[in-house]
Amino acid sequence: MVQVAVMGYGVVGSGVVEVIMNHRDGIMKRSDAELNVKYILDIREFPDSPYAEKFTKNFDDILNDDEVKVVAEVMGGVHPAYDFTKACLLAGKSVVTSNKELVATKGAELLEIARQKNVNYLFEASVGGGIPIIRPIGLCLAANEVIEVAGILNGTTNYILTKMIKEGVSFEDALRTAQQLGYAERNPAADVEGHDACRKICILASLCYGKHIYPEFVHTVGITGITLEDVSYASSWGGVIKLIGQVSKLDDGTLDITVEPMFIERSSQLAGIDDVFNGILVRGDATGDVVFYGKGAGKLPTASAVVADIIDCVQHLKDRKFVFWEDGNASLVKPYEETVFPVFVRAVSDDKKAASAKAAELFPGMKPVVRPDAAENEFAFVTGKMTVADRNKLLEELKASGTEIKSVIRIADL
Amino acid sequence: MVQVAVMGYGVVGSGVVEVIMNHRDGIMKRSDAELNVKYILDIREFPDSPYAEKFTKNFDDILNDDEVKVVAEVMGGVHPAYDFTKACLLAGKSVVTSNKELVATKGAELLEIARQKNVNYLFEASVGGGIPIIRPIGLCLAANEVIEVAGILNGTTNYILTKMIKEGVSFEDALRTAQQLGYAERNPAADVEGHDACRKICILASLCYGKHIYPEFVHTVGITGITLEDVSYASSWGGVIKLIGQVSKLDDGTLDITVEPMFIERSSQLAGIDDVFNGILVRGDATGDVVFYGKGAGKLPTASAVVADIIDCVQHLKDRKFVFWEDGNASLVKPYEETVFPVFVRAVSDDKKAASAKAAELFPGMKPVVRPDAAENEFAFVTGKMTVADRNKLLEELKASGTEIKSVIRIADL
Repeated sequence: MVQVAVMGYGVVGSGVVEVIMNHRDGIMKRSDAELNVKYILDIREFPDSPYAEKFTKNFDDILNDDEVKVVAEVMGGVHPAYDFTKACLLAGKSVVTSNKELVATKGAELLEIARQKNVNYLFEASVGGGIPIIRPIGLCLAANEVIEVAGILNGTTNYILTKMIKEGVSFEDALRTAQQLGYAERNPAADVEGHDACRKICILASLCYGKHIYPEFVHTVGITGITLEDVSYASSWGGVIKLIGQVSKLDDGTLDITVEPMFIERSSQLAGIDDVFNGILVRGDATGDVVFYGKGAGKLPTASAVVADIIDCVQHLKDRKFVFWEDGNASLVKPYEETVFPVFVRAVSDDKKAASAKAAELFPGMKPVVRPDAAENEFAFVTGKMTVADRNKLLEELKASGTEIKSVIRIADL
Repeated sequence: MVQVAVMGYGVVGSGVVEVIMNHRDGIMKRSDAELNVKYILDIREFPDSPYAEKFTKNFDDILNDDEVKVVAEVMGGVHPAYDFTKACLLAGKSVVTSNKELVATKGAELLEIARQKNVNYLFEASVGGGIPIIRPIGLCLAANEVIEVAGILNGTTNYILTKMIKEGVSFEDALRTAQQLGYAERNPAADVEGHDACRKICILASLCYGKHIYPEFVHTVGITGITLEDVSYASSWGGVIKLIGQVSKLDDGTLDITVEPMFIERSSQLAGIDDVFNGILVRGDATGDVVFYGKGAGKLPTASAVVADIIDCVQHLKDRKFVFWEDGNASLVKPYEETVFPVFVRAVSDDKKAASAKAAELFPGMKPVVRPDAAENEFAFVTGKMTVADRNKLLEELKASGTEIKSVIRIADL
């Protein structure tokens, strides 16, 4: 019998306790792991819970109990989750987590402590909720170079974009519906500004390339600036707008890593991933494209991923899993200004004819995009591939000639 | 340094040797596993191979060499692969394989020997080529009941159906093109008759439900009877025809397991999986639907899955992985005649009006389906849910009244 502690009794934490206590026999049968939840740490009171006697407000109860071999940290946020995780690892306990913020900001340090103490720090639930992705990437890595990872990593923004695309609802209205349905929080910034997706692509990039990529290295744009005009142009162009987190290795060894809304072609495997679903594409040199799809969040999917990690820890109490990356620094990432890709540009001008001609002159090889019901003074085009810096210079020139730039959206190569 | 033997130097075997020898440093760095291919077993001669000195025609060289800890069996077929695998396991060597026929017919026996000898028998490459699926299902299983697995498991038939759907090419012509492109073999029976997909769903079912489901328990229909008329009706109905391998657990504990062409709705995540790609949907009680998508075959994808298994064996030389199922028997499977689902029926009759009326009388609640360019005497409909036996009786009655039944195709619930 292995004793487990669960830190945090919110949505995921209560799911973890439920899955362990309801599936104990099945877990025992399938994995030979006999589990019991000994402590639940939460500052709140749950006198009516069937697990009332397991609750504690004192972290030291867990830390000082040598019977507790595995701790599930499902509190979220960096503090005090970071301090608690560190203390548990230093005390020789394995820790599993769904806390993407903590893994994305402190992963290298915590993995190094786990290595020194010969215990595990696992985080399958931190990306993609119940979709197995951390382990399958490990499998791909075994015999592949990972060329690229790209994904729809945030269900809230995908729900909002899907509403905008399929129902012609504005961003504000779609956000309000998402909040009413519980898909978006009252303060939706972490989702709609792209920070949540950024943490996830940082975790995947660190895993694939072996060095910690911190969120502050990553150019991150959310979906608050996306309008129904952009959605309509994407459709005319032959695709949809999705918020994509993406990382690929460039020839000079640096990473092109970004989170931003992108035009993706309708034929892409990511184009059909709608509503609150997540989808992650892993491009290996041997496997080719492999796509993982499913619900990226939710109580039971996320909890079941946490429990799978707990079971893995129990099966490897003396035998560390090989999940690891070293610390990293900003020089690993290509400066955004130097990255190269085509974009969609939407603009307005009182003298549309002259402005379009100027755009065609500045961007040789650009392709105009037209849409039904466009305003009189509106025009749009797709540029060729160029660096962000070069393009920004040309767009400044276009602006100088009296054109207002409304949108600049990356064209994905997926 | 762990010595490995590769049995069979065909497409997959040569890929395995290539991946190991070209990725040795990367494998070492990422997994701490130092590998060397010591033997390659093949009855043919490869004097010009850079690995010429590793070849042997004598299996005993491998069996009797205690340095060889892991053997990759990539010969295909049951004999002599079965005898060689058994001998290796009995000699305390771990075995990994891409041989779905062997796993589907002898899996329980070989897994039991592996258990007794405390070594591994792994087969990630046997389903889905380079798509990680065996391990992710293990992960789902850890904390889920698997409600259903359904997939497009054979790339050759998916390529043929895609040609028929998208280009209006007949089955025969599409097959010929597939053969020219090397996607189908000269004798295409194993693919087009559904046997390959059957072996794969047997492996997935055995894994999910813990008992060996043998191919002969599974009602298996291929795609040789699918016509362009059926494809056209599927489109009018709102979907596509795909060859689906599917297993789900019924309330009485038996399995509904089948391989057959099915109508699937265009909105299903499997509907957009085209060409030689495979896609597998795993429906867990906690995770919900998770879909895995990628190239299901090919030299390097399959080889990279084999190599991932080899690395896993090396990391678990003293510590068996928990992949196991017991022997099973036919009573685990619901007889096909007793399974319940709706079907699409296409029929012709010289007195179409009377025949349609008779069909409506026999199948209350049936829904007619019409398509453009249908022959004068043709009609089609979708039935309600009923057992295969009940439906067959009603169809006999319909035939008795002078109607010829051209197609009966299952409607998927995906």
